[in-house]
Amino acid sequence: MSKKKVKVFAPATISNLGSGFDVIGIALEKFGDIVVAERSKEYGITFSVKTTEKNIPTGSDNNVAAYVAQLMLDEFKPNYGVKMVLHKQMPIGSGLGSSAASSVASVVAVNALLPKPLQKKDLLRFAVEGERMASRSPHADNAAPSLFGGAVLIRSYFPLDVVQLPVKNKLWWVVARPHIVIRTEDARNILPHLIDLKAAIIQWGNFGGLLAGLLEGNAKLVGKSVEDVIIEPVRKRLIPGFDEVKFAAINAGALGCSISGAGPALFAVTDSEKIGKKIAKAMEETFKKQAKLKCDTFVSKINMKGAIEI
Amino acid sequence: MSKKKVKVFAPATISNLGSGFDVIGIALEKFGDIVVAERSKEYGITFSVKTTEKNIPTGSDNNVAAYVAQLMLDEFKPNYGVKMVLHKQMPIGSGLGSSAASSVASVVAVNALLPKPLQKKDLLRFAVEGERMASRSPHADNAAPSLFGGAVLIRSYFPLDVVQLPVKNKLWWVVARPHIVIRTEDARNILPHLIDLKAAIIQWGNFGGLLAGLLEGNAKLVGKSVEDVIIEPVRKRLIPGFDEVKFAAINAGALGCSISGAGPALFAVTDSEKIGKKIAKAMEETFKKQAKLKCDTFVSKINMKGAIEI
Repeated sequence: MSKKKVKVFAPATISNLGSGFDVIGIALEKFGDIVVAERSKEYGITFSVKTTEKNIPTGSDNNVAAYVAQLMLDEFKPNYGVKMVLHKQMPIGSGLGSSAASSVASVVAVNALLPKPLQKKDLLRFAVEGERMASRSPHADNAAPSLFGGAVLIRSYFPLDVVQLPVKNKLWWVVARPHIVIRTEDARNILPHLIDLKAAIIQWGNFGGLLAGLLEGNAKLVGKSVEDVIIEPVRKRLIPGFDEVKFAAINAGALGCSISGAGPALFAVTDSEKIGKKIAKAMEETFKKQAKLKCDTFVSKINMKGAIEI
Repeated sequence: MSKKKVKVFAPATISNLGSGFDVIGIALEKFGDIVVAERSKEYGITFSVKTTEKNIPTGSDNNVAAYVAQLMLDEFKPNYGVKMVLHKQMPIGSGLGSSAASSVASVVAVNALLPKPLQKKDLLRFAVEGERMASRSPHADNAAPSLFGGAVLIRSYFPLDVVQLPVKNKLWWVVARPHIVIRTEDARNILPHLIDLKAAIIQWGNFGGLLAGLLEGNAKLVGKSVEDVIIEPVRKRLIPGFDEVKFAAINAGALGCSISGAGPALFAVTDSEKIGKKIAKAMEETFKKQAKLKCDTFVSKINMKGAIEI
């Protein structure tokens, strides 16, 4: 089933979902990166990037897509090289799993070229190495949902143990991405090392509600359960206008709202696409009014397929 | 539908389940307390206790069953008093929700006598006041499952918000209760106020696995997800022989094992009643050998009914 040339799309993701810091993510239907890869007679990875985004690393030594592709070649030692073009459609530092989408698209593409392609579950560790390179933290909460689709729980990091959650895909997720960049590494460095046990109990109560709500397709339960009493109060300071935009989302009908990944993107939850569009508009206008920030928005269900050949 | 006399059974419970400290509990099929209550011409609560257990408070001022019954009479002001007999079958300080079983049996019984009985969901707040009296902490993670049955998530305490989880009731729960007493209040006082964020992330990853496993009836996932890196390492010091008994449980086939509630009872998880009995025997023998402690054991599925008139 191996191929000479493939084109792979890997979707954007929302990780953390408020109360599930570092342990959960969902794939989105809209937004993502594309990798085109083909077997080549040249040794190693021949890498290039096509993008209109700024500050995208383009070298095979500093772009995650090239890095993880090289890791795979190092391990599987095929008798060919890979020529790879990354169509980088997502801005970096958005909070929507940009580096994960590039890594995942790359590993899925390189895998499809292998004489004996692996199963998706065996590819996650390569994508996670891309995350380690991008942010010095081997987090899997974007890479796993981008790869597998759906909602994915990272039950454990050592050893890496992911659980694909059998969600009822009924909710609508509103994403608002203001045009500023937050480096994941910076967003990690401001986090406290110690937290109050009482806050942790509030957090895992909410996280339980989030999971139960996702599995039941209960938008109201998910909405109130995304409340994050530990990370959001710290990270929101990196996002100009956060409080006002969240208020605008709730006011427009959102059942819950928090930071997507490390930010600056925000997400909101609703049970209706129509209300979702209203929420998106309110968030966009409020970013503009309160923080003079341009903002992209979209409304999406969960993408249940994850990375796919297109 | 009100009655002149009722007999109510409220089951024992396992709260915390390792990784879900203070936010989850399950009801058990075996073990519990019974309350017999009838309308009386005497004002207020006429209370007595029948038991073979030691140190059971018997006054209407210090027994939770009498206390919560009085709270209900104060609120609903019926034109009769209540004569109540608590058949106290559970030892106190066991880690199996002894006070909650008494409180729940009492409120369900008093409710059934009311001219207009409330729904179960409206009774939880009275039972939680019994928990506050018993341990100075208004926890609901025993009272809610004892009342409703099944597995119950306490998503939030302020405001109190409980979620009945649609579990697949396939697992077997082994309980081993050594004959020592741990006061819930004492078990709370040794807990740290601050915890490591990294430990909290491990905990809520596991808690996510616990919930997903319960909802899917996946014993293996539940078993590895009960791992508790925050509370168990502190509280296990109150339980002589803990490490050896846990090891014996795992060695006998348990998929996971931790402290039930505040202890000293331990619980273990398995997918087979037969293995459950083997685990119970191993735990009992190890408590005896390592800590010279007598130990009761039983093997139970989740009790899906909760408190019932019998």
